[in-house]
Amino acid sequence: MHDVAHTPHTEQHFEATETVRDIVIGLSDGLTVPFALAAGLSGAVASAHIVVLAGLAEIAAGSIAMGLGGYLAARGDAEHYASELVREQTEIVTRPQDEADEIYEIFEQYSVSREAATPVLQALQQNPGAYVDFMMRFELGLEKPAENRAHRSAATIAVSYIFGGLVPLLPYMLVADIGLALKFSVVITLVALAVFGAIKGRLVGTGTLRSAVQTTLIGGAAAAVAYGLARALNRS
Amino acid sequence: MHDVAHTPHTEQHFEATETVRDIVIGLSDGLTVPFALAAGLSGAVASAHIVVLAGLAEIAAGSIAMGLGGYLAARGDAEHYASELVREQTEIVTRPQDEADEIYEIFEQYSVSREAATPVLQALQQNPGAYVDFMMRFELGLEKPAENRAHRSAATIAVSYIFGGLVPLLPYMLVADIGLALKFSVVITLVALAVFGAIKGRLVGTGTLRSAVQTTLIGGAAAAVAYGLARALNRS
Repeated sequence: MHDVAHTPHTEQHFEATETVRDIVIGLSDGLTVPFALAAGLSGAVASAHIVVLAGLAEIAAGSIAMGLGGYLAARGDAEHYASELVREQTEIVTRPQDEADEIYEIFEQYSVSREAATPVLQALQQNPGAYVDFMMRFELGLEKPAENRAHRSAATIAVSYIFGGLVPLLPYMLVADIGLALKFSVVITLVALAVFGAIKGRLVGTGTLRSAVQTTLIGGAAAAVAYGLARALNRS
Repeated sequence: MHDVAHTPHTEQHFEATETVRDIVIGLSDGLTVPFALAAGLSGAVASAHIVVLAGLAEIAAGSIAMGLGGYLAARGDAEHYASELVREQTEIVTRPQDEADEIYEIFEQYSVSREAATPVLQALQQNPGAYVDFMMRFELGLEKPAENRAHRSAATIAVSYIFGGLVPLLPYMLVADIGLALKFSVVITLVALAVFGAIKGRLVGTGTLRSAVQTTLIGGAAAAVAYGLARALNRS
């Protein structure tokens, strides 16, 4: 990314694809919350069976809540875009002077005079479709959402959450001793968080090591607090 | 919002403030996931104590994961903005022709000719600060993040999650009979979800009733699946 000399100029600005973002959202919460819940419960209950039950219930609840939440958020964005589009399409016809003033105001923010902006305004007025697109992007800051984004987003987040959440639960399913299962769970989940954080850091450009440390610390902190809380409550 | 005749033109386009968004994020997951987890566990374990323990461990884990996640996301946005700002500041000096071509390309997408765009380009070139701001917004689609956004965002999300999560757990803390506690929890949480959804729908403009139905259905679906899964697993 920072290798300016060897990459074409247009590719220097990285944009995470929306699918990568959805996978990151699902995986990071999936690795963290069921992990912390299982660790917390194993500090308070004697049965690995209950830890697994609670963990799977959490994965079901979390993946549905996050998946449906992602679905509604994406659909809400699409509807918001569509309704603003209709509004702008109407306004360039019914209140052309207001829209022209908005164009001037946009450019004034960047110290571009009305005189300098007028040729752009005239060009836009000759092409209503482009005029509307320009207002959507530059007045409202809205991008046209991808088709079917809502369904894909929901499924990607939910599946990523499930995959992430099964990692910390596996030891409790396979190892009978709950103390030993906790240790295994801590080790494999912290490793998984570090690997996930490193890959994420490389993809989004925040730095491999730094991102790995961050995701591991969040997961570790959540698990430590949940463990401490459950132990303290169980004693009281 | 849709009362076009009585509101000034500039206020017609609603933008949820970032704090409202953070409260919505924290509350909607906080009301949903601990609720579903508690409902799921109460289908499988006999002790309300374990349901409360698991629920509180989940709230601790979820609020930390979401709060720290929100903190890092906001800080990442701020750093991304800062690094792209430096890049653009450098580029308008070191590769002025590339930047000028980018301006022309931006306008070409809206069928604005080079001739019409040239006065704007010249005005921007006379004001490097405005030129950089223009590129940040219109080439990269980046908005300057608010100061201290990361800390506030983390705290708001975490506290909202905790408040949301305590609602479904209260009956298990107060009612000894787990079956009765489940019924109370379902009723008060579905009511809380409906009220929250209605307020959210009014704030973000998706419609009060529709938003109330959506949030209630998500919470109900997550709880029903978690309950069914935990019961099925407990029998097997």
